[in-house]
Formats: sequence, C-alpha cells, structure tokens
Amino acid sequence: MSQRGKFITLEGGEGSGKTTVTQLLAAYLEKRSLPFLVTREPGGIHIAEQIREIILNPAHTMMDGRTEALLYAAARRQHLVEKVEPALLEGTTVLCDRFVDSSLAYQGHARGIGINEVWNINQFAIHSLLPDITFYLDIDPEEGLARIAASHEREVNRLDLEGLPFHNLVREGYQQIAALFPERIVVIDASKKIEEVANDMIRRLEEGILKDF
Amino acid sequence: MSQRGKFITLEGGEGSGKTTVTQLLAAYLEKRSLPFLVTREPGGIHIAEQIREIILNPAHTMMDGRTEALLYAAARRQHLVEKVEPALLEGTTVLCDRFVDSSLAYQGHARGIGINEVWNINQFAIHSLLPDITFYLDIDPEEGLARIAASHEREVNRLDLEGLPFHNLVREGYQQIAALFPERIVVIDASKKIEEVANDMIRRLEEGILKDF
Repeated sequence: MSQRGKFITLEGGEGSGKTTVTQLLAAYLEKRSLPFLVTREPGGIHIAEQIREIILNPAHTMMDGRTEALLYAAARRQHLVEKVEPALLEGTTVLCDRFVDSSLAYQGHARGIGINEVWNINQFAIHSLLPDITFYLDIDPEEGLARIAASHEREVNRLDLEGLPFHNLVREGYQQIAALFPERIVVIDASKKIEEVANDMIRRLEEGILKDF
Repeated sequence: MSQRGKFITLEGGEGSGKTTVTQLLAAYLEKRSLPFLVTREPGGIHIAEQIREIILNPAHTMMDGRTEALLYAAARRQHLVEKVEPALLEGTTVLCDRFVDSSLAYQGHARGIGINEVWNINQFAIHSLLPDITFYLDIDPEEGLARIAASHEREVNRLDLEGLPFHNLVREGYQQIAALFPERIVVIDASKKIEEVANDMIRRLEEGILKDF
C-alpha cells in the first residue's frame, strides 16, 4: 500500500505572493517526481461550486456573517471529502491555496465573529483532517497591496479595496492563529524576494514532512 | 416599547400531528388577540430557499452528511435573522414548525453524526437565540406512520419510507435531547386525540410563558 500523501496549505493576505509561490512549489514537487495535486476551494466540486455561488451572489445583500461562515464551512467539507481526502489516500500530495485558517483570519478575526467560534464549526467540517503543514506568508498589508498595484498581474478586487484597517486585522488574525497552532503553522517572511520565499518553504518541507519521501 | 414576542417551536417525528396542532395553537393565539406568526424553515427567505435547493437536489448524491448539517444550520441562521428575530423584537409570538432539535434528532442521532457535534454548529447558527419553549410531540413511530397511511392527508414521502429502525432512532434522539434541555423542552404525549394534545400544550403556555400576556 502506498504511503498517505501530505496535505500542505498556503495562507496569507492579499499580495503575499501565494499564487506565484504555489507554482514554484509545484515545480519543485514535479522535479522530485512526487505525485501531487494543486487545488483551492471550491475546486471544481459541483456542490461546493453551488454553495459558493450563493455566497458570492451580489443580490444577497441580506447575507448574515454567520450564514456566510457556515456556507464556507459546508463548501470546505464537500471539497475535502470529494477531492482532497481521496487524493491523500492514494498517496498524492495536496497543495491547497487557502483552507481553514482563511476563515479564521477573515471571518473569525477581521469580521469579528471570533476565531474560536469559527474554529468550532470548521472543526466539524474538517472532522480532524488538518493539514500536515501550513505556510503562512506574512507581509505588511501596505506592502502587499502596493505589490498588487505594481504587478498589473490581476485587477484590484473587492477585498483589496476593503481598506488598510481591514487588511491589518486579517494579518493580526493570522498572527494569532499561528500562535495557536505552532506545531502546524510555519510563518514565512513574505517580504523577501519570491524565490527566497519559495526556497524557505522547500527547506522546511525537506527538513520536515518530505524528509522520508 | 412593546414586550418581546415569545418563540415557540414544535418538534416530533412523522405522523406526530405537528401540522394539525400548529393550526389549533394558531387558532388559540388568534382568539386571544395575540399578534403571532406561523413559520417553518426556510420560510420564504430567499437565501435560505437557495440553500435548501442544494440540500434537496436529487442530483447531489455525493452530498456528505456533515455538509448537509452545515447547510441546514446556514439556512436556519438566515431564516432566524431575517424573519424570526425581527418578529420577536416587534412583540410578535413566533410559532415555528421544526427548529434546531430536528437537526439534533435526525442528523445528530439518527444519522449518527452525534448530538453534541450537531449542537455545536447549531449554537453558532442560533447565537444563543433559543426558543422560550419547545413542544416535543412524542409518539411510537409505528403508530405515527399508521396515522399518515390512514389519513390520506398527504402523500407518504421519502422520509416516511426510511423504515421503522430509522424512525425509532429519531424518537430515541428526541428523548435524549428532551433530557438534555428539561427547562426548555416539554414532552407531550402525542398518542392522545389531537384536541387533547393541543389542550395540553395550551395549558402549558398559560401556566408558563403566556401567563403575563
């Protein structure tokens, strides 16, 4: 029987370089000939896509923050059950762009519902399937937003425009969560050059969960 | 300022007479000239209706039990925020056919997710807005299902056909929940004639939460 795959998640605020770093990590796994899968919620899972449509529908101005948190948890559950867990079981390493910690930072802390409360419903959703390692790309939001503006890589979106106070809250949330789960979450200085950031992460993987692969 | 309305919920298995009893209670509140509202989830709330469509879509055979429980909790939250809470605040008594205890009995106990686990996500959803009183209409499932078959009042539905073992589990679940919340849940013997059942409930209301109205 093949060894169970490793579950790696990436977290961070806007402009932290998550997307580029994910590509560099994928290239590394490719080079090592490790079977892997890159995903992000809702990940093409039909039920999760449907749930996401309800969350993002601009007509839903009456959507309560707790309703939203429960819907995110529901979509997360289905993506996990249909895509992440089967891959891990067949020995595939899963690289997931954002996971449970995004809900804790954005809705739990920045939106004010409470990290513990949002953690409770997410524990129900993930049913003890936590990532083997989570990289939190830490960067000053001012710097992150400036990066987005300078890169022209993508349009500035609704969340970018939330304003600096909101993004500062997100960062504060992430830092609190990293302190709550020091065994799982590795804080990476994302103000460095992106190649250095990726190399920091690869070193942590080689010293840790990928040592025996 | 008007007094806050009372929040009354009705619970019970199939054929327990909930629907008829709700009508009798509504007639009683009408006679007493108390402003009231009869509802049930999703209660015409657009977001909650959309969520329910995902739950009930027969194409969603991959739906995980925990995803389903989270979706029910999300729909409950939105119905509560948009309809129940505003009514209570303006002094309207709310009569709700099924609420949080249905999730505990059906999904928590009968489907095997666990009453405590389902209770946790529902606590998040209701955010301490519990009913002032909950009537659990207790009846032997065999008798309840026979009632439905005899009444021709409605078609036998998918849940009725789950088979006696499932409905016995639902009853067992309700009985455990009633024991967990003895201050809130009143167990009513629903094997009596429906008028007697309604009178038992009205007596409890007059001795309790409606004493000062």
